[in-house]
Amino acid sequence: MNRNIRTDLAIELRENYKQDSSLEGVKIKTILNEDKSVKTTIIDVINDTGASKLGKDIGTYITIECEELNEFDEGMHEPLIKELSARIKSLLGNAHSILVAGLGNRSVTPDSLGPLVIDNLYITRHLTDIKGKDEEKKNKITVSAICPGVMAQTGIETVEILKGICSNIDVDTLIVIDALAARSSKRLNRTIQLTDTGISPGSGVGNNRKAITSKNMGIKVIAIGVPTVISVPSLVDDSMDIIADAFNQTYGKSIMKEFTDEQRYHLACSLVEPELVDMFVTPKNIDELVKRISFTISEAINGMN
Amino acid sequence: MNRNIRTDLAIELRENYKQDSSLEGVKIKTILNEDKSVKTTIIDVINDTGASKLGKDIGTYITIECEELNEFDEGMHEPLIKELSARIKSLLGNAHSILVAGLGNRSVTPDSLGPLVIDNLYITRHLTDIKGKDEEKKNKITVSAICPGVMAQTGIETVEILKGICSNIDVDTLIVIDALAARSSKRLNRTIQLTDTGISPGSGVGNNRKAITSKNMGIKVIAIGVPTVISVPSLVDDSMDIIADAFNQTYGKSIMKEFTDEQRYHLACSLVEPELVDMFVTPKNIDELVKRISFTISEAINGMN
Amino acid sequence: MNRNIRTDLAIELRENYKQDSSLEGVKIKTILNEDKSVKTTIIDVINDTGASKLGKDIGTYITIECEELNEFDEGMHEPLIKELSARIKSLLGNAHSILVAGLGNRSVTPDSLGPLVIDNLYITRHLTDIKGKDEEKKNKITVSAICPGVMAQTGIETVEILKGICSNIDVDTLIVIDALAARSSKRLNRTIQLTDTGISPGSGVGNNRKAITSKNMGIKVIAIGVPTVISVPSLVDDSMDIIADAFNQTYGKSIMKEFTDEQRYHLACSLVEPELVDMFVTPKNIDELVKRISFTISEAINGMN
Amino acid sequence: MNRNIRTDLAIELRENYKQDSSLEGVKIKTILNEDKSVKTTIIDVINDTGASKLGKDIGTYITIECEELNEFDEGMHEPLIKELSARIKSLLGNAHSILVAGLGNRSVTPDSLGPLVIDNLYITRHLTDIKGKDEEKKNKITVSAICPGVMAQTGIETVEILKGICSNIDVDTLIVIDALAARSSKRLNRTIQLTDTGISPGSGVGNNRKAITSKNMGIKVIAIGVPTVISVPSLVDDSMDIIADAFNQTYGKSIMKEFTDEQRYHLACSLVEPELVDMFVTPKNIDELVKRISFTISEAINGMN
Repeated sequence: MNRNIRTDLAIELRENYKQDSSLEGVKIKTILNEDKSVKTTIIDVINDTGASKLGKDIGTYITIECEELNEFDEGMHEPLIKELSARIKSLLGNAHSILVAGLGNRSVTPDSLGPLVIDNLYITRHLTDIKGKDEEKKNKITVSAICPGVMAQTGIETVEILKGICSNIDVDTLIVIDALAARSSKRLNRTIQLTDTGISPGSGVGNNRKAITSKNMGIKVIAIGVPTVISVPSLVDDSMDIIADAFNQTYGKSIMKEFTDEQRYHLACSLVEPELVDMFVTPKNIDELVKRISFTISEAINGMN
Repeated sequence: MNRNIRTDLAIELRENYKQDSSLEGVKIKTILNEDKSVKTTIIDVINDTGASKLGKDIGTYITIECEELNEFDEGMHEPLIKELSARIKSLLGNAHSILVAGLGNRSVTPDSLGPLVIDNLYITRHLTDIKGKDEEKKNKITVSAICPGVMAQTGIETVEILKGICSNIDVDTLIVIDALAARSSKRLNRTIQLTDTGISPGSGVGNNRKAITSKNMGIKVIAIGVPTVISVPSLVDDSMDIIADAFNQTYGKSIMKEFTDEQRYHLACSLVEPELVDMFVTPKNIDELVKRISFTISEAINGMN
Repeated sequence: MNRNIRTDLAIELRENYKQDSSLEGVKIKTILNEDKSVKTTIIDVINDTGASKLGKDIGTYITIECEELNEFDEGMHEPLIKELSARIKSLLGNAHSILVAGLGNRSVTPDSLGPLVIDNLYITRHLTDIKGKDEEKKNKITVSAICPGVMAQTGIETVEILKGICSNIDVDTLIVIDALAARSSKRLNRTIQLTDTGISPGSGVGNNRKAITSKNMGIKVIAIGVPTVISVPSLVDDSMDIIADAFNQTYGKSIMKEFTDEQRYHLACSLVEPELVDMFVTPKNIDELVKRISFTISEAINGMN
Repeated sequence: MNRNIRTDLAIELRENYKQDSSLEGVKIKTILNEDKSVKTTIIDVINDTGASKLGKDIGTYITIECEELNEFDEGMHEPLIKELSARIKSLLGNAHSILVAGLGNRSVTPDSLGPLVIDNLYITRHLTDIKGKDEEKKNKITVSAICPGVMAQTGIETVEILKGICSNIDVDTLIVIDALAARSSKRLNRTIQLTDTGISPGSGVGNNRKAITSKNMGIKVIAIGVPTVISVPSLVDDSMDIIADAFNQTYGKSIMKEFTDEQRYHLACSLVEPELVDMFVTPKNIDELVKRISFTISEAINGMN
């Protein structure tokens, strides 16, 4: 039902099935950190049934939520950085040479998350003088990075740029970082999603592009995403329940609930005029939010070594 | 009726009264340029009745519309630059020393219009060697500029910054440039509004701040604004008519039209959750649009001398 | 002798008088922090004799030096941030409302220090809900900020902009932050100078502009400066000693030392062609250096409350 | 003799041989445009003798000089854009799909030339709906673009990034754009060099990196470069002649001319302290200069279709 009313978050798709305490083919686990400031939800889509039910590919989706993520004080982020760092490390396995790709358009504030993460990364691949004994070096991860830009700027699919680079240098793991779209304003800029299933760049602000996955890249791909925008159709769909309530008060019955899913879906679509599909909704202080979250992610990656 | 469903455009407020061909206290004139690519509408609010009816202060509101404003080709902008330049000049009268203030937050793309205009302005106030004879110099306008930032960055009301500067240097006219909010996605990034009534900074992306007017500045104030965002309440209000049509098809009658204005107003308000009020809607390619429009405005100002 | 071979650092001027262990009218004290990573030199120019001898106005010049300031690891900066914060606080006295002005041109990397500090400041003047009891509030300092731009961008002397703003809002102390010029490449991006004597904006990258002092501002002025560039004449002057050595080896005598100060001065001047005077020398990785130092300064100011 | 005192301009190397009106293996032609505002010098290095004599690879070096290039008025650039566009087109031959790479570090002003050109390019490779008949389409050039960043940001040699991308998409020609180093302050920001011999990225501001040539890329490579910096050794070498004159006046003889080339070379080297080698000299208004020149180059490329 929600196929066209977009969210990139597995956790939001999951919420559509709250009544099903057990969703076939999908395993869910929730963990709170020590001081209860960070909540981690691990959704494992283990087979095709689960993938089809949830509308997400087979793989692991880790969602880290933290109220303080959009608060000012940077000191608050320590537990979050620690949790994020540990989760990335667990997904990396025994990676040795990582390329971090900061997807998105640096000139559009909510889409600049990826490039901003790259700006604060500690790049080490080109340093030949990494200190330490040979034994220690073996366990070191070297980091390289690229901001490929978006298709309107390059004329090239992001996946083509990254494939070209990865096939030409010694890289065993690709981490892609991108802004995502959420359904709910409550989750915006407060949630980080990690997954080993890849990403479709531009699902947040840009237009949907060819997916970047382990399959088409030929190496392990880990995606880190943060919802920074709500799509206009999502927003309108959310409003519909409230409209329904308003009508109920006026007419004394549940008009909206009489709609079939089909009718409701067509209604939401019709509300979205063609030009609005190319628009997004984002908070007014998105500059501060993106700056802070990108810093959190870059520190988590820098802290892995 | 529209007091809370925000537009900063006089021309959009006027459209609510299309049935009234003559709105008391408001004079309207429409002019097409030679090749019909640029349409200029001049709305004169001449007395308190007009001000109260339209919901805008007494003064002149010039709206310049141009389809090509959000097309790529910069050559297309020539007739627009010419028209804009002439209109600014007419509002300036015999100004000699202009301060141009680029309002807004450079780090939030749709709010960066003002600072981007300043980046391309030809600043002359500090140049002592302006060429030409004394006679010619008398007719020269000198230009200075400032990007005061927004309150979240400065902690100071923009009007306080500008008042301080204007009272301390020899300036006879203030031009303020800011991003605005429109109701309609069709007008976004296609319309330039000029007015001699001042501006409330942040009416587009930021939060509403103290107005900047001739009255509180003590010198002539001309505002140039371009709608770069739609407010979320406006968006939802627009959707309501479409929802109504959908209901009509389902129930065979005109539900929505049975709502009183009052009911409709409360409905629109209830659709806007508190956190959405601090969000805005903007096109995905807002970086290109703002860059192009800011260039048009700076060229129009540069071209006045 | 060095009046035209520019440095903005009192500590470099002082070094010209190393032979005089006691310079009349100038008191000097050097302090090392606990782990000896941060060295603070306090130069007090106490009367006109000292001012004339040193070539600096009467007042206090605090120089904080730290080798690690241009190393990557941000953790290294903790002792420096602590020392800087304490020194700023001691100069502030019982200030209550501070305006921090980030001087310089954001678009020229070594001159962007001031604006970058502002980007990371915690602005509080406009927040009415500062937490804490009345008693605590009394001791709170509120912070506001402005990036006035440089004269080529504004057409206005920076001092005029700041005077206008300060006279129009409730501010008792002005902190100005600017990039400086040093003589020695060894001091570049490793030294922070604090002074209560004001500053001439643009002494680093820009052109010399009207000074900003307590006298002309009417409120306390504290200047924080970091040398990010070497002026071309300084560079050439430094080369002269090496040239002298080369000549000595060739001719078997000390040619250069036979030059009078006057001759040497004219020689250095003649080496500087007119167009080179408008150029500066800066390290290739100036982007990283300025980013890191600006972060150190903003953290020191943020940490005062 | 000049091997270590760096210039990237063939025209400056040529000037060392002014006495030789005919340099073996090197053909030179100079052309003035109609209004004599643009001077084009074509240096053809036709064999190994010429290559060895000039210190440049076999190939064509086109130097376009224009006094007005660092003047404000953009209108002045028209004849230059026309000349540049024609020269690029002649080097392109029958290219159909061009990748334009904007080399350099966007965060270091004089090194941002390449990325700034990309910002204004009209990207067409991804547009499927290019207007016009099939016949016309055949003659159309499609343009894609990339800003690969510098090694300190990516950890990857630029040539590896470009090789990867070019081998993965349908591109027949690579245009690389980079900031260069000049010897003379008189040529800075006034000269555009085109060559079909490739480029060593970072020869201007960055550190020397692996060359990008037709040979190692496997497709045609055209390099467009503008000198935006002077290296410190070049600056010091230039000063030496002036120092010599000063000594002559003092000692009544030509000290400097008594130096052998070898001695002079060692002198210049000794003047350049290790840390100065990683510094550059650039004008204070480099932000305006780079912005204007990058606009000229992007317009020349945009104008080819």
